[in-house]
Amino acid sequence: TERFDPSLHSHRRFNALSGRWVLVSPQRNLRPWQGQQDPVDVAQRPSHDADCYLCPGNSRVQGDANPDYRGPYVFDNDFPALQADAPAPDEAGDPLLRAAPARGTSRVLCFSHDHSLSLPELTLAARRDVVDTWCDQTADLGARWPWVQVFENKGAMMGCSNPHPHGQIWATDRVPDEPAAEDVAQRAWFVKNGTPLLLDYAERELAARERVVCANDNWVAVVPWWATWPFETLLMPRVRVPRMTDLSPELRDGLAELLGNLTARYDNLFGCSFPYSMGWHGAAFDGRDPSPWQLHAHFYPPLMRSAQVRKFMVGYEMLAEAQRDLTAEQAAAALRAASPIHYRAVRE
Amino acid sequence: TERFDPSLHSHRRFNALSGRWVLVSPQRNLRPWQGQQDPVDVAQRPSHDADCYLCPGNSRVQGDANPDYRGPYVFDNDFPALQADAPAPDEAGDPLLRAAPARGTSRVLCFSHDHSLSLPELTLAARRDVVDTWCDQTADLGARWPWVQVFENKGAMMGCSNPHPHGQIWATDRVPDEPAAEDVAQRAWFVKNGTPLLLDYAERELAARERVVCANDNWVAVVPWWATWPFETLLMPRVRVPRMTDLSPELRDGLAELLGNLTARYDNLFGCSFPYSMGWHGAAFDGRDPSPWQLHAHFYPPLMRSAQVRKFMVGYEMLAEAQRDLTAEQAAAALRAASPIHYRAVRE
Ligand SMILES: O=P(O)(O)O[C@H]1O[C@H](CO)[C@@H](O)[C@H](O)[C@H]1O
Ligand SMILES: O=P(O)(O)O[C@H]1O[C@H](CO)[C@@H](O)[C@H](O)[C@H]1O
Repeated sequence: TERFDPSLHSHRRFNALSGRWVLVSPQRNLRPWQGQQDPVDVAQRPSHDADCYLCPGNSRVQGDANPDYRGPYVFDNDFPALQADAPAPDEAGDPLLRAAPARGTSRVLCFSHDHSLSLPELTLAARRDVVDTWCDQTADLGARWPWVQVFENKGAMMGCSNPHPHGQIWATDRVPDEPAAEDVAQRAWFVKNGTPLLLDYAERELAARERVVCANDNWVAVVPWWATWPFETLLMPRVRVPRMTDLSPELRDGLAELLGNLTARYDNLFGCSFPYSMGWHGAAFDGRDPSPWQLHAHFYPPLMRSAQVRKFMVGYEMLAEAQRDLTAEQAAAALRAASPIHYRAVRE
Repeated sequence: TERFDPSLHSHRRFNALSGRWVLVSPQRNLRPWQGQQDPVDVAQRPSHDADCYLCPGNSRVQGDANPDYRGPYVFDNDFPALQADAPAPDEAGDPLLRAAPARGTSRVLCFSHDHSLSLPELTLAARRDVVDTWCDQTADLGARWPWVQVFENKGAMMGCSNPHPHGQIWATDRVPDEPAAEDVAQRAWFVKNGTPLLLDYAERELAARERVVCANDNWVAVVPWWATWPFETLLMPRVRVPRMTDLSPELRDGLAELLGNLTARYDNLFGCSFPYSMGWHGAAFDGRDPSPWQLHAHFYPPLMRSAQVRKFMVGYEMLAEAQRDLTAEQAAAALRAASPIHYRAVRE
């Protein structure tokens, strides 16, 4: 009988963080693609765009004008998904028609005044300012809400409606499903092993090296064993950090550096501004012991074969289980082979 | 204090079938959309396309020729995601690097020899043949595999690489995560209430009417209370049917009819061939008691505001929880107002 080869044979991998499985079908990579080709984003944008509602000095959708800001700039979302004072629905009643309150705040965070620069193109110092803003916002909103979701949607393919470099911060009154699943796994691991799951995991990956994309003294980025999206990565500190607000100045410096390294590799992989959704998970501000938690960022990029051919998570994936067409090891090797110097960046 | 209004206030709804929550933000519907506009599919295709690898008589990607078939036609996927005899990975070892075997079969099902017709454009009799083929394939593969996933990806937006009307059938050696979650909920409900969850649910919806899209004597289609995708629907029999293979001839007739009604409404809503992923869930062939289960189809269509503006499940949705921008009741009203006679169909 044939020996198992992960790059030839269909198999499943377990996501120890979410508790879900992913079907790996490396043999599918051979299939020709006759489906949708997306437009490539290689535009060189101006540093200031008079039509952009995020640029300094311009008017926003609802008429407010942006100040003439420099560096990161935060404001309340003009169309927030969460209202701070939404009345509560009737919670009693039919168990098949259950509702619950949803309260919170949505903010927009412009990474820079410069319309033309994405995260890997910012100077190290400017990226460090973004890291500080993430930390400050998390502290500010964490004082009022149990969950603070810092995230970025990048690229039209990922539903981003404005190319100005920006992310969002949504804070809510309930720990949402995704982090709730990670909470269960991390607490169970901590009870059993006395150490944070992701700190142990980072150690394994740093020893094995085959899924490591890049690392510095205090951070590491890997294509996780259980990656679902083709070039999904997980960015983790190498020391105990339950949440964003626990980051020391040294760790913030290291993060600004590795974040530039990782996102430059993404852009260099297919020679385009690489679309993705990314975001941070850390211990909730819910009064429980944060020790089992380890801060981390997920990067979920859709591109698979080129700047134009993406992975569709549809059909079987929506109805049954996640599925991927190349192994995590193959994806990590490709990202390792990509340069950490951005193809367009003028180096500091 | 203000009274709660589901069409004005952010709230959460519980998906009693999957156990997950969805954030409903109806006030977001007001926001202007400046993001990606997708191309509209209004092409009138020929009945036979010499370049289509699914049309009768043509060659497929790997060189096999299709017979000169009429009606539904099933063949093995040339690039299957599941191999029937994949060797097993080593399952012992690190709990953070767990693997499991994944074995199964992938088949393609052409709904018709006619390249130009989608499900709502087929005659009732031709759609009935598709229903029979779904049942036959489920019986055939269910004899060998515990899970048979019948599904359709429709439209380039949903990763479909060929406009020839077709679906797929993937059979696997493990009940995947999505139906496994539904299994837990349905068994718990059955233990408590002695009736299938979705049969009770269908009754509630038929009594309330506000989320019903269409119904006939033995089937009903609703925008479920917990819908995640803007115009998501759930298609269910009105009598006990644990799985596809339990469908009587009358129920198959009724299904062929309501399936045409529902998919015609979709196409008529925005005057285009409405993209979606759809698929069937029923009791697994795993030797357990199928009684708690009720057969049902999920339709997950991405369009939100028009034929060109879709909902992106990105950022907050990928990292935190599902989110929608209009209520289930609003979506159901729009689909009820759409005609069940296809805008392009010649009626039988
Ligand atoms: O098999 P197809 O139609 O080529 O591929 C499509 O459906 C599959 C099953 O839902 C997905 O895994 C693919 O990402 C999608 O592009
Ligand atoms: O808020 P934006 O950027 O307009 O909208 C984008 O991000 C949101 C949060 O991830 C999503 O709910 C929207 O579907 C997406 O288009």
